Amino acid sequence: MKKFDDLINFIRAEVNKSIKKIPIPEKPKYLYNPIRYSLKGNGKRLRPILIHLVGRANKIDPDIIMNFSISVELLHNFTLIHDDIMDKDTMRHGKKTIHEKWDKSSAILAGDGIYALSQIILSSIKNSELSIYFNKATLEICEGQALDKEFENNNDITESEYLNMIDKKTGALLSLSSILCPIYSGMDEDIISLYNQYGRNLGKGFQIQDDLLEIISDQKRMGKSLGSDLLEGKQTIMVIKARKKDPEGWKQLINSSNSLNIIDNARIFFNDNGIIDFTKFMARSYFNSARENLNQIDNIKIDELLKFTNLIEKRTF
Amino acid sequence: MKKFDDLINFIRAEVNKSIKKIPIPEKPKYLYNPIRYSLKGNGKRLRPILIHLVGRANKIDPDIIMNFSISVELLHNFTLIHDDIMDKDTMRHGKKTIHEKWDKSSAILAGDGIYALSQIILSSIKNSELSIYFNKATLEICEGQALDKEFENNNDITESEYLNMIDKKTGALLSLSSILCPIYSGMDEDIISLYNQYGRNLGKGFQIQDDLLEIISDQKRMGKSLGSDLLEGKQTIMVIKARKKDPEGWKQLINSSNSLNIIDNARIFFNDNGIIDFTKFMARSYFNSARENLNQIDNIKIDELLKFTNLIEKRTF
Repeated sequence: MKKFDDLINFIRAEVNKSIKKIPIPEKPKYLYNPIRYSLKGNGKRLRPILIHLVGRANKIDPDIIMNFSISVELLHNFTLIHDDIMDKDTMRHGKKTIHEKWDKSSAILAGDGIYALSQIILSSIKNSELSIYFNKATLEICEGQALDKEFENNNDITESEYLNMIDKKTGALLSLSSILCPIYSGMDEDIISLYNQYGRNLGKGFQIQDDLLEIISDQKRMGKSLGSDLLEGKQTIMVIKARKKDPEGWKQLINSSNSLNIIDNARIFFNDNGIIDFTKFMARSYFNSARENLNQIDNIKIDELLKFTNLIEKRTF
Repeated sequence: MKKFDDLINFIRAEVNKSIKKIPIPEKPKYLYNPIRYSLKGNGKRLRPILIHLVGRANKIDPDIIMNFSISVELLHNFTLIHDDIMDKDTMRHGKKTIHEKWDKSSAILAGDGIYALSQIILSSIKNSELSIYFNKATLEICEGQALDKEFENNNDITESEYLNMIDKKTGALLSLSSILCPIYSGMDEDIISLYNQYGRNLGKGFQIQDDLLEIISDQKRMGKSLGSDLLEGKQTIMVIKARKKDPEGWKQLINSSNSLNIIDNARIFFNDNGIIDFTKFMARSYFNSARENLNQIDNIKIDELLKFTNLIEKRTF
């Protein structure tokens, strides 16, 4: 495993180097200072690493792989900057968010600018097919964010509505990361469809596990923002399950908790009702489906992508 | 002239029909209701009309022309939606702005979605060169908006800084509208450069005249927002000229005026100092340069583009 970790770290470092090399003008400072700040963030570079591994498995030109990686990471940054405004999040990867450090106008504009920049970079690869998929993924991410906003405080949200939301909000970009290299090399539709399914299964597993970890992990920082999420009626798979299993008990729990004890109370409730086990099972089944998708793809060495899937599942990433 | 007016009205009606035909999904309503509302706006469709006239002069396939027109109009809508948030504008074309009718989050997301949509439409024309110019224009518009924000209450802004700002904020998109058809048909760089210059001269003439009309026109509605712009230190070519000509007198005028009388006071001041005449002359010289650019373009019938330039100059548009 050591060797694979080294590979991941190497890719991440190369991606960071390439991001640093993007020529960002000095002026106007109002636009480019926040953009520069955002690109210096400590993101995990999950999506660029996925693109690199798919690209390596398909023997794509490294320069092309890096181009896709940077474009997608910038697209990701753009959506985070705007989401942070909408969700009033003040911290991201241990740094102040742009609208917190500067103001909302700066953050709106920085997001717009990074999105334009991502596509100037992508378009240097002369293949307009890529641009369609790139923008369709963006529109889907917007749909996911819209659903997330609609779902706030809506206690009628079902499991399948939630899964559709995270498929758009998280799955669409992991799908894009999986398909860009295959589309570039002109693969058959059914192969591209397998990569698409892989990205979406990975995305659902990732998001469900994220919800779970926020409840069972010991990190107080994570828990703190989750506490307010729970109190504010943000929907997760566990909340939906809790409402379904014991609506009165869950309602009572929310009403009788405060931001200091709600995580502990919820953890006990989820445990007693078998919701922790159910959620673990659900995440695992999506990761299994993702591995199955990989196994169905012929003619490539899938070992690195399988290891990557395992890393994500174990969250040692 | 009647016949040309008919042509303009016909193009505008066709553009509106095509915008109506864009398939906008029903759900999520949080995203698509504001987008639908925005696309129903009563814009003048200035940019699509310019694209149509350039396309006609170059005998480009009408479907291609319409594709460019819709893409650019959507890009324009996206920038207006986000600008309206930043500038706290509550009305646009006689309708409530999105952030006013819904909220800021809806408006941020609607803008993002429309921009993605504009590029999904553009990318159906298989030419990745177009996408580079499209996104470079967007980045330039962001720079223009950033400069506009930076210039607020900055009394050191010079004429050339102002001209650079409006070139980005207004000129970049009129340039894009002028060059898309020539780029699509693979014209030489020096011809594309003439179209580019035409769009930028038109943009500067248009914007300077806009500033002027807000002072000398009788429309109270226009004047009302301008009054607060002047009091809030928004820079226009006339304000810059006034500060340069009689800094003390202008300062005194601002300090002794209120939102009800400032337009009248400013009009008298500008008149007495020859600033109205100077501004008219300046706008005219940009329109003249735009006409010269057209005259330098060989092998096309420029009469419609000349008439269009005159319409813009006379603002009977």
